[in-house]
Amino acid sequence: MAKRKINMGMVGGGPGSFIGRVHHMAAMLDGQIELVCGAFSSNPEKSKVTGAEYYLPADRVYDSYQEMITEEAKLPEGVRMDFVCIVTPNHVHFEPAKLAMENGFHVVCDKPLALDADEAEVLVRIKEETGMLFALTHTYSGYPMVKEARKLVKDGELGKIRKVVVEYPQGWLSEPLEKTDHVQASWRGDPKKSGKTCCVGDIGTHAFHLAEYVSGLKVEELMSDLSTLVPNRVLDDDANMLLHFRGGARGVLFASQISAGEENQVILQVYGEKGGLEFRQHEPNTLTIKWLHKPMEVRRTGTAFVSNIAAYNTRTPAGHPEGYLEAFANIYRNAATCMQHLLDGTEPPEEALDFPSIYDGLRGMRFVDKAVESSGNKEWVQF
Amino acid sequence: MAKRKINMGMVGGGPGSFIGRVHHMAAMLDGQIELVCGAFSSNPEKSKVTGAEYYLPADRVYDSYQEMITEEAKLPEGVRMDFVCIVTPNHVHFEPAKLAMENGFHVVCDKPLALDADEAEVLVRIKEETGMLFALTHTYSGYPMVKEARKLVKDGELGKIRKVVVEYPQGWLSEPLEKTDHVQASWRGDPKKSGKTCCVGDIGTHAFHLAEYVSGLKVEELMSDLSTLVPNRVLDDDANMLLHFRGGARGVLFASQISAGEENQVILQVYGEKGGLEFRQHEPNTLTIKWLHKPMEVRRTGTAFVSNIAAYNTRTPAGHPEGYLEAFANIYRNAATCMQHLLDGTEPPEEALDFPSIYDGLRGMRFVDKAVESSGNKEWVQF
Amino acid sequence: MAKRKINMGMVGGGPGSFIGRVHHMAAMLDGQIELVCGAFSSNPEKSKVTGAEYYLPADRVYDSYQEMITEEAKLPEGVRMDFVCIVTPNHVHFEPAKLAMENGFHVVCDKPLALDADEAEVLVRIKEETGMLFALTHTYSGYPMVKEARKLVKDGELGKIRKVVVEYPQGWLSEPLEKTDHVQASWRGDPKKSGKTCCVGDIGTHAFHLAEYVSGLKVEELMSDLSTLVPNRVLDDDANMLLHFRGGARGVLFASQISAGEENQVILQVYGEKGGLEFRQHEPNTLTIKWLHKPMEVRRTGTAFVSNIAAYNTRTPAGHPEGYLEAFANIYRNAATCMQHLLDGTEPPEEALDFPSIYDGLRGMRFVDKAVESSGNKEWVQF
Amino acid sequence: MAKRKINMGMVGGGPGSFIGRVHHMAAMLDGQIELVCGAFSSNPEKSKVTGAEYYLPADRVYDSYQEMITEEAKLPEGVRMDFVCIVTPNHVHFEPAKLAMENGFHVVCDKPLALDADEAEVLVRIKEETGMLFALTHTYSGYPMVKEARKLVKDGELGKIRKVVVEYPQGWLSEPLEKTDHVQASWRGDPKKSGKTCCVGDIGTHAFHLAEYVSGLKVEELMSDLSTLVPNRVLDDDANMLLHFRGGARGVLFASQISAGEENQVILQVYGEKGGLEFRQHEPNTLTIKWLHKPMEVRRTGTAFVSNIAAYNTRTPAGHPEGYLEAFANIYRNAATCMQHLLDGTEPPEEALDFPSIYDGLRGMRFVDKAVESSGNKEWVQF
Repeated sequence: MAKRKINMGMVGGGPGSFIGRVHHMAAMLDGQIELVCGAFSSNPEKSKVTGAEYYLPADRVYDSYQEMITEEAKLPEGVRMDFVCIVTPNHVHFEPAKLAMENGFHVVCDKPLALDADEAEVLVRIKEETGMLFALTHTYSGYPMVKEARKLVKDGELGKIRKVVVEYPQGWLSEPLEKTDHVQASWRGDPKKSGKTCCVGDIGTHAFHLAEYVSGLKVEELMSDLSTLVPNRVLDDDANMLLHFRGGARGVLFASQISAGEENQVILQVYGEKGGLEFRQHEPNTLTIKWLHKPMEVRRTGTAFVSNIAAYNTRTPAGHPEGYLEAFANIYRNAATCMQHLLDGTEPPEEALDFPSIYDGLRGMRFVDKAVESSGNKEWVQF
Repeated sequence: MAKRKINMGMVGGGPGSFIGRVHHMAAMLDGQIELVCGAFSSNPEKSKVTGAEYYLPADRVYDSYQEMITEEAKLPEGVRMDFVCIVTPNHVHFEPAKLAMENGFHVVCDKPLALDADEAEVLVRIKEETGMLFALTHTYSGYPMVKEARKLVKDGELGKIRKVVVEYPQGWLSEPLEKTDHVQASWRGDPKKSGKTCCVGDIGTHAFHLAEYVSGLKVEELMSDLSTLVPNRVLDDDANMLLHFRGGARGVLFASQISAGEENQVILQVYGEKGGLEFRQHEPNTLTIKWLHKPMEVRRTGTAFVSNIAAYNTRTPAGHPEGYLEAFANIYRNAATCMQHLLDGTEPPEEALDFPSIYDGLRGMRFVDKAVESSGNKEWVQF
Repeated sequence: MAKRKINMGMVGGGPGSFIGRVHHMAAMLDGQIELVCGAFSSNPEKSKVTGAEYYLPADRVYDSYQEMITEEAKLPEGVRMDFVCIVTPNHVHFEPAKLAMENGFHVVCDKPLALDADEAEVLVRIKEETGMLFALTHTYSGYPMVKEARKLVKDGELGKIRKVVVEYPQGWLSEPLEKTDHVQASWRGDPKKSGKTCCVGDIGTHAFHLAEYVSGLKVEELMSDLSTLVPNRVLDDDANMLLHFRGGARGVLFASQISAGEENQVILQVYGEKGGLEFRQHEPNTLTIKWLHKPMEVRRTGTAFVSNIAAYNTRTPAGHPEGYLEAFANIYRNAATCMQHLLDGTEPPEEALDFPSIYDGLRGMRFVDKAVESSGNKEWVQF
Repeated sequence: MAKRKINMGMVGGGPGSFIGRVHHMAAMLDGQIELVCGAFSSNPEKSKVTGAEYYLPADRVYDSYQEMITEEAKLPEGVRMDFVCIVTPNHVHFEPAKLAMENGFHVVCDKPLALDADEAEVLVRIKEETGMLFALTHTYSGYPMVKEARKLVKDGELGKIRKVVVEYPQGWLSEPLEKTDHVQASWRGDPKKSGKTCCVGDIGTHAFHLAEYVSGLKVEELMSDLSTLVPNRVLDDDANMLLHFRGGARGVLFASQISAGEENQVILQVYGEKGGLEFRQHEPNTLTIKWLHKPMEVRRTGTAFVSNIAAYNTRTPAGHPEGYLEAFANIYRNAATCMQHLLDGTEPPEEALDFPSIYDGLRGMRFVDKAVESSGNKEWVQF
């Protein structure tokens, strides 16, 4: 393994950014990654302010991501950044990701991958051409109990899967916050920055990824009903869908930003011939398994009774609850571990390869396109 | 109020019946109703066995519901039954209900009301012509916290309703029990006895009633996806739907009998402009209210902090949990209270009028018809 | 089995009584018991009012329990009451229980058994001399999941028991309600009616019974700390104790009536060498088992995965929650089943013998005496 | 504020250490602290291994804490460590803490502070003489909802406090792990390393701190019952206590390492005249408030409805669960913020001063002494 930390450069995350701070904490947690540079804002002054808050030397705080990528590429290995993390609004994912890979930098990118499937396909091509590592932060798949759930399904413990229900209710857009100066709401409500949807792209893609990740099944057909419940809002704030999975399983997916009073609940239920499982993100250290022919079972993060893959993604013993930042950090740690092995020319452990990829990102963008199409036509669409 | 108990005659509920025993316990709980006669089975021997178990005199145990209705009608008021409770499979609801009303008896009928909307309309007409009282046992609306939820919505505490999610997962038909001698499963799996659906009629109607009862809204359009997940099964065992309510609210309804490991969960979530509410039937004494602009609140059965209508339907102080039988008993108690006032020629209290009616039954049958139509055509249907 | 219902006469339970109504509902639920007479109040007018509410004929409503016992004894078997249920305040348990047994009537008595261990011992002697059946309504032991817990311990599944924690917090006496006209509070706060304690006798005895019933262990030594937290109150309203069980297990018991905001929570935790169990009365259909060497397990009322004794005390399938009244009704049903077998001269099933007995009542009264003694002297006392 | 990160040196935390990794993650999370040196083990080879894992240069990895403190003191400010974090077993807290403060280094020390109150008093004296900052990692007080609870009590929202119940059950020592090579168990079971107790010192002190921290009350008298339930074990593994607080409130405290199947639950309940609160560490983002005169309320980490002090100690929005590491990190962040202000000569914000102090540590050691004394003599002891 490398004798040095992996160097990170950040794109976005300037003053007022929520997700920038989250990425930084997730990257710092394990002491394996160092933030060495950043282009935190398209406004150079704001970029400087954030750079100082992160104790960066002034010469590693850049005015633009273009400048950062160009200048860092000139620095020697070990000094220059190894990867960029992209924490900008959706419309500023494509360009920096493309440029970074083309200049030999790995990428950790916030979701959704891009504005549509066309952009996503370009990124996939470049990733394949450059061979750079690409991680997408579908955080919820980082929880140990989500990985346990996936393992359980994969091992056939539930039998053939028949039904998947995934719910992602939020309430924070119950009022037209996008018409105030609310940083998070304003860009999400603006089609130029958010893309053709708000709710589906922002949180529906998380739910979609979780459903496919855990069930191991692919959606092949969907019926979508996107709505805008807050008067005069431009984009959708509520999305309900019926799903058909390849192989015959049925599904329900709903995501909402107007489920008033909901925080950021994410609930996944998967049912097979022999039993069902339930994961509720507000209490993420618990996985409930409801067996058809024996009593209900509760698996818990950090116990001796979970799979290797769950244990690999756990930091504390049972009863020392892990949370959102640890799930997020698992993506960083696994990606960084792979980067270290790339530096060393060694093979990473299989467990470290388990983080959301650019292909998950592409699939998410297709999901967005299909959801919009189905809802517009009020009919089932093939995936 | 009447100086005597209200007399009940039972149709169905012979050996092996689950729901017959439930109706009996629900009717007995408050000491207001007496079982005076029964036609418990189409098999006279079986009817006698059950009659003896209920300590009935032999001459009040009948060989058929036709005989019971005819013979009881000859007895004097106060001796004869005042109402019939119908606890037979779906295909034996229509005839006894019709006959009972035509002979001057009130009816408490298990759900769904009949086999289809046509039958239901006939019953509605007869009910209106005869003026008899008719209660339908949509049990879940009998819970105090469901009534509290309805009151909350009605009083506008949540603001305009925007979204309703209702879930009814069961797992007991994960295997083809209908091909064994399982009493409950065999008739439910047989279209002649169950009607054109299994899952939708049996539990989907409960979910549908609950959604409309609490939200106060009417579904005007739905998109349904009925499936049969267990191989070689005749009827549906899983049903997922998207709902549009009059006035613009959106909804999701799903019911399932193949959600392996689920018992009999019923979950209702209703979201308005100002907050949302959540009711989970497995813990029915709790109503969670998630406010947009203040902390989450938990209302509990039996406390001093609930509405009159909730209190009216409660028997024990807070912390003495009430359950399914008490919810069921509320339908009987309210209906019987109305019958007592009819005997007395007095007005019942407004609270006693709150039980599911024949109109709810008709609406449920229309729901079944529409769900089947939408799923078959894979398109949205108007309600 | 008897061809007739078991006849019940009630002592106490007049206007304003909470527990009288509860006993009545519990007795009615299974249709096995009929209320035939009552002496509902020491005030004959009040007794009449309640008698009419229960639809009793006037000649079976008595002015006093003495009159009721004398007069009923003159009626023929099958007409006269078979047993009395005593639902009066503590100071009116001893006399009617004694008189009933001496006149050949079985007894179902509310807890605590009497005012002190001396009274209790007299009742035990009379019970043994007369051979009458005597049931004490320690309701919480009537829950199916409490019986499941007991079975689990008895079968050695948890290994040798090491620790028992039982908690019974209420908050309803956080204010001096006993100085108002609050019916329940006034007699409980009066030493003449309640005995030498309020909190210990009223709810501490429930906790004590539950701990011994489930663990199968007997307390041999205790250290008690009784307090009166509400100013100017006469009796204790909070009780905390350390327990030593025969065989070495340790325990903690606390009961409180000033745990403001608590409803009527009862929590039992029992730990053995191999695992622990947890029962929480507010959600009584769940028994959580925390294993040392395997994942946590959840057993649920009504499932196929529980013991015979739990199933015997269950009325509805899984997911149709049972509550306090059903637990209460189990005591009545089991006692009444034994009475029916006594009438028939047959042996009752072993499961029906499982209800709290007069010996549990005696033990409870000793517990009260020891708790008062220990707290007064601030030292450990032998049991 | 300082333009540089705060420099940390670690004492202990070598191979196999659990708590060393936890301290490191907690220190890293916010990007405010840098690990610059360490004496990770009394075995220099092991110290080197750990140093390399943390990417430390070889010359900052020391063979002993004495060497580290001496050598670091020679380095210039900004290069040398600013504080030591002490993550060794209990018997190696006193010496390095003393030496560090005497050489001008701040201290973050794992709990309990020392082996007994005598050692603790010496450390208090030195802290006062040197003026160094001293933080003790009573982690559970770092949770935002614990701080919310404290604020609620302090603001009088619950009225005068009457009762405090604190529970800390673990099950991991249900078997004699200390007789295996289990790193955590062996030193904890050894009186030379652990002190005069195992359970009381290790986790009882956490419970005691939490009770006093949230209630704002001081224990003045206690009755303790320490037991050793696992045969042939040297120290206590179960501790149950009755508490009297100054001002009249009553309390119960129990801690256990043989509550088989329990992970690391910590539960606090505080009751006042107007309501009670409940905090359960396994779900630490929820604070339940049970009001006497209004419905139960649930306050949640990250919502807009909590106090400034809770918000100050929160990193993510509501519904993005925080856990144990974030609570731990709050102690580091607050202490480091104070250190930065000391460097700058400015006043830290009041919120940053809220971390467990050396005085809490002294109080914890007195608690240990009193608990042992009371249990040995089987009598109440003054505090």
